[in-house]
Amino acid sequence: MDMKTVEWKDNSVIMIDQTKLPNELIFVEYTDYRDVAEAIKNLVVRGAPAIGVSGAFGMALAAQQSNAMTKEELIVDLETAYQILLQTRPTAVNLKWGLEKTLDIAKQGKTISEIKNSLIEVSKKMAEDDITINKKMGKNGSELFQNNDTIMTHCNAGALATVGYGTALGVIRATKESGKNVKVIATETRPVQQGSRLTAFELKHDGFDVSLIPDTAVGYTMANGLVNKVVVGADRIVQTGHVFNKIGTYQVATMAKQHGIPFYVAAPLSTFDMKSDAEDVIIEMRKGTEVTGMGDTKTAPDDINVINPAFDMTPPELISGIITEKGIVKPPYEESIKKLFN
Amino acid sequence: MDMKTVEWKDNSVIMIDQTKLPNELIFVEYTDYRDVAEAIKNLVVRGAPAIGVSGAFGMALAAQQSNAMTKEELIVDLETAYQILLQTRPTAVNLKWGLEKTLDIAKQGKTISEIKNSLIEVSKKMAEDDITINKKMGKNGSELFQNNDTIMTHCNAGALATVGYGTALGVIRATKESGKNVKVIATETRPVQQGSRLTAFELKHDGFDVSLIPDTAVGYTMANGLVNKVVVGADRIVQTGHVFNKIGTYQVATMAKQHGIPFYVAAPLSTFDMKSDAEDVIIEMRKGTEVTGMGDTKTAPDDINVINPAFDMTPPELISGIITEKGIVKPPYEESIKKLFN
Repeated sequence: MDMKTVEWKDNSVIMIDQTKLPNELIFVEYTDYRDVAEAIKNLVVRGAPAIGVSGAFGMALAAQQSNAMTKEELIVDLETAYQILLQTRPTAVNLKWGLEKTLDIAKQGKTISEIKNSLIEVSKKMAEDDITINKKMGKNGSELFQNNDTIMTHCNAGALATVGYGTALGVIRATKESGKNVKVIATETRPVQQGSRLTAFELKHDGFDVSLIPDTAVGYTMANGLVNKVVVGADRIVQTGHVFNKIGTYQVATMAKQHGIPFYVAAPLSTFDMKSDAEDVIIEMRKGTEVTGMGDTKTAPDDINVINPAFDMTPPELISGIITEKGIVKPPYEESIKKLFN
Repeated sequence: MDMKTVEWKDNSVIMIDQTKLPNELIFVEYTDYRDVAEAIKNLVVRGAPAIGVSGAFGMALAAQQSNAMTKEELIVDLETAYQILLQTRPTAVNLKWGLEKTLDIAKQGKTISEIKNSLIEVSKKMAEDDITINKKMGKNGSELFQNNDTIMTHCNAGALATVGYGTALGVIRATKESGKNVKVIATETRPVQQGSRLTAFELKHDGFDVSLIPDTAVGYTMANGLVNKVVVGADRIVQTGHVFNKIGTYQVATMAKQHGIPFYVAAPLSTFDMKSDAEDVIIEMRKGTEVTGMGDTKTAPDDINVINPAFDMTPPELISGIITEKGIVKPPYEESIKKLFN
């Protein structure tokens, strides 16, 4: 994947429209931060690290758009943009991280033009750092995998979930780059199918041996010895080691535990939320139409009630290790996560 | 559900075309047993009890179609039909049961016309018995459920999987008929979506409070206290109590066990295979296109490798009880299943 998921170019934000993949590769261009907010809400861009950087780019756009005559007016405009961008998706903490970081930088600025420039610079730096961090994480994580492993992954924690390279798929890429031969099993990941639409797409594009399974076949593939390891990304990790990630992660982790298969999470430090407890994290509920059909095909009766949570929580006892850019975090998590931030 | 899934009428077999549900309710009519075989293969009719009866009806059609001049020639024709019908789907044992029963009856017949008539009579009787058995099973199973239970079910073990009333959904129907108020959570059941297309359809049609979830949300709903009990059907149960059922059943059972939620299987005696061991049962692998798209919507890259098993195996330690027309079978299963057939 040589193209970037999200990028700043000529005072606008360029994104791959991920809702069109794998059928069409289309780039969209935004000059209004409200359009960036809509893009995050509608999954044009998704994946915790990618929406963190997109939020920062949104703040940079908001600064460009502002007609404020004073620094104070500009901060008010940026605080409005912060709220609008923050409310798009509640679970991934990286979004808040990207927004807070840019708002803090803005508050430290002295003049309007200095703030406008610094927001572009800092958000571009965050985008660059994302790739650097993912490569470090990949190198760290690659030590956990052996030659001829078949690795299962859920959802898309790939180049398309970040600016580039990926978190979980970054680890898989780095393992291959280290000379080990690995195969991948990608779960479809209903309802939005980030596994079949995005993970299968980007791994096949990069020449990996990748097989797609329906989410219902996780147990079968593990029971039949077709999987050696699992690695997934994360949308938020709290200080106790509870991992919030794409709906279905919890049952993949449970099945892995049942079969003695190591289950790893790959996430940068920006995914850790050291302020919240597990019970405080809001699980985003999305609209039922994501489940009742696909494209133009309706697959459920009209007006059926739907429960469609976008994320679930995996408890620390199911997790063999958390791969970060600062190394691999092992149980007991409360202790080892605290050390990460010292 | 007042209509029958499969029925013998005026020397032809009438079926609901389940591939068209829930968008269209279309009945198809077959006068050639080879078309019945195709219908079974292509899931026009599915569900272990329904394909058992459909196989028997196929044999009755084959007898009608035969130009044999002697009983011996007729048996040869029926043996050919037996093989063609049997090879359509390997996992559900009811198909073999329906075919064997009709072939045995044919062999006992004396004249060609006697055999032709008896095959119609016996297969019609099997269809009637199916509903009677399901109602008995429902009554037996209803004792296991309490007022205000929310019951999860996977796939479709309903009226549409049988001639009428259903196995797992028959139990849910009988529970409601006994005056208890129950809600249902139906899993989508990718890739063929029997949960969203069929279970949601038939329960909504009957006025149940039913909610649809993606298969990835089984863990979430259980972890959040939204489910009290689980009941599913079965395609084959071997003497050790290992249950072969729709892909994904094994992980639903594992999650139920993890959350202390009782997990029940409802199946008639015709679903028990007392001759095979668990490791002898062939899991049907189906074509990848079931997973790579839905209707006209493509959701995966071209030529992606797919692992698409139609069934999985749930071990007896995850099963709280098996509901049959002869009562509820409890662990130790090897012993209690043997008693069923004495």
